[in-house]
Amino acid sequence: MRTVQVELGDRSYPIYIGEGLLERAGELFALHEISRKSKLLIVTDDHIAPHYLALLEDRLQAEGYQTKAHVVPGGEASKSLQVYEEVMTTAIQAGLDRSSTVVALGGGVVGDLAGFVAATYMRGIDFVQIPTTILAHDSSVGGKVAVNHPLAKNMIGAFHQPKLVLYDLNTLLTLPPREVRSGLAEVVKHGLIWDEAFAGWCDEHAAELLALNLPALGYALERGCSIKAQVVSGDERENGQRAILNLGHTIGHALEAVGGYGTLLHGEAISIGMVGSAMLAVGRGKPADILPRTKSLLEKFELPTAIPEGWEDEAILSAMMHDKKFREDQMVFVLPDRIGKVNIVKDMTVAEVKDVLGRLREEKQHV
Amino acid sequence: MRTVQVELGDRSYPIYIGEGLLERAGELFALHEISRKSKLLIVTDDHIAPHYLALLEDRLQAEGYQTKAHVVPGGEASKSLQVYEEVMTTAIQAGLDRSSTVVALGGGVVGDLAGFVAATYMRGIDFVQIPTTILAHDSSVGGKVAVNHPLAKNMIGAFHQPKLVLYDLNTLLTLPPREVRSGLAEVVKHGLIWDEAFAGWCDEHAAELLALNLPALGYALERGCSIKAQVVSGDERENGQRAILNLGHTIGHALEAVGGYGTLLHGEAISIGMVGSAMLAVGRGKPADILPRTKSLLEKFELPTAIPEGWEDEAILSAMMHDKKFREDQMVFVLPDRIGKVNIVKDMTVAEVKDVLGRLREEKQHV
Repeated sequence: MRTVQVELGDRSYPIYIGEGLLERAGELFALHEISRKSKLLIVTDDHIAPHYLALLEDRLQAEGYQTKAHVVPGGEASKSLQVYEEVMTTAIQAGLDRSSTVVALGGGVVGDLAGFVAATYMRGIDFVQIPTTILAHDSSVGGKVAVNHPLAKNMIGAFHQPKLVLYDLNTLLTLPPREVRSGLAEVVKHGLIWDEAFAGWCDEHAAELLALNLPALGYALERGCSIKAQVVSGDERENGQRAILNLGHTIGHALEAVGGYGTLLHGEAISIGMVGSAMLAVGRGKPADILPRTKSLLEKFELPTAIPEGWEDEAILSAMMHDKKFREDQMVFVLPDRIGKVNIVKDMTVAEVKDVLGRLREEKQHV
Repeated sequence: MRTVQVELGDRSYPIYIGEGLLERAGELFALHEISRKSKLLIVTDDHIAPHYLALLEDRLQAEGYQTKAHVVPGGEASKSLQVYEEVMTTAIQAGLDRSSTVVALGGGVVGDLAGFVAATYMRGIDFVQIPTTILAHDSSVGGKVAVNHPLAKNMIGAFHQPKLVLYDLNTLLTLPPREVRSGLAEVVKHGLIWDEAFAGWCDEHAAELLALNLPALGYALERGCSIKAQVVSGDERENGQRAILNLGHTIGHALEAVGGYGTLLHGEAISIGMVGSAMLAVGRGKPADILPRTKSLLEKFELPTAIPEGWEDEAILSAMMHDKKFREDQMVFVLPDRIGKVNIVKDMTVAEVKDVLGRLREEKQHV
């Protein structure tokens, strides 16, 4: 079992990564003093529940925990205020009190939703995350929880750190290949922003990671979580440095919005965005090798590096300006200095971005 | 102008109390570095808006602030998730960003609702309170914000401290007399739990306070806020000592629920509850004078000290057990040791409480 400690003062917590951790859930909950006196609420979705919910409840009950489960429909639509209220109703009816814990069993949607319930039920109770996707390694560090407003994603939320994260690698074995690739895009991103050696390791081990080789995956998630933890420790509420985690996200979010959520998966969208960031950086005089190295790394993971045909510049630019409320020629981008180091640049012009969108459209898709 | 500083580390903030502070709102916002670059959202209700909203917007705009107002219906029904979502919609449409501030102009309902919006809009933005009731002196200290769930009050919320509280005494002059009395019950409570001399001062100055003598009211609010600030500073998230603020609230909340919210105002309900707590304390051997002194003080403020006729013990007890999830004979009460000092007692029996409910019903109402 690997452990990453997220250092946040009195809100510090461990992430355990290993095979078979669901079986050990009761023991690990007890070790971390999750209260047995008060009921636990497990929030999960209807894709995950058939595979793992019974096992988790069984292992927790065997250690003396009382559990109640709330199953939401899979997918982004469950990150709504309406579903949030339904989970709250279950929590109240089940008699959760201030010593209770909310457990998120699932991917990013379940983690964000359950985390926001935990952040706000009786003004905040304990929270445990049991991520079941690779992508969720990213959201399991840093305490960002949220639901969507009909007008904008993640607009309603809080910072609420979990007490504990259990990453059972076995749960990743059932992931669809496209979700595996999308999740690995965030792993690769952590190498690109922070650690050239880890980016190189990803390049060498892409085939093993895509094949869900568990020891390789365990190491990749440990490094990904650990890099994110280092960044977040210095800037819990994103007043500065934490923004470097958004490499590829300005273009990526716009592509997700323009395509309609789900057309491009999150990791696919930021993959294209990271190629765009490399182009912008090179255009500002950074070393020319950043671009081919970034592209070839993402291609190894069979991730897209070009904007799909027929998507208009104007729509993408407009989504970007709207999302971030940029002023003209003061667009903020995270750009690479080199592989393994990035900077925040605040004076990017619309002309530079338009140029790059054009080039991203002409990119040959090698996948 | 009086100032109470609420000491909470990097979440410390001042409460300004004085006449004409609304006129000085722009200047005081600027002094406390409320950002002028990002839009302010003022949340108020349809009772308060006609009196003070135009003045507040005018004074803020005169100092270069851009404002947007959202007016909710007056009353507890506005503390709902539905109204919360409507305020969020206004915030998004008005373009509030992470540097924006939510301003609560009104009483406890508006403060709780607007505070929860501020706590969760884009994972938390700044918050300023401009209370317009006496009762709100209590909720303006300590950062408890919340909305109601259909199944239970204040079940969905957060701890979110304001940056600044502006208490313009002139706004209290239009309060209905019954709301004045109800608000003063919380002022008196702060004396009873913490400061015998202040309880004595309230006793002597009851007539002036009821007549809304502003210098007397300013002093009473300063002391009330200051006592609450001392208690909260030691226990921001209510893990222990902060619970002493609940003197009279166990019985009080049950009476509010049984009567149907609004039948008894909050201050009226806790007035009866405080008499009950004095009875319970004397029953446990505390000095006998606690009871007549508590009663006579509350009667000076024309507050009720008896349970209304026809309200059944069983309903009140059941509301109490449900609200607090007490176990039989382990009911938790805040009880006076003497005037000006209280303790938390955790082993109160149902028999003792039943006895006191009976005596509270037989109390002669002197009002």
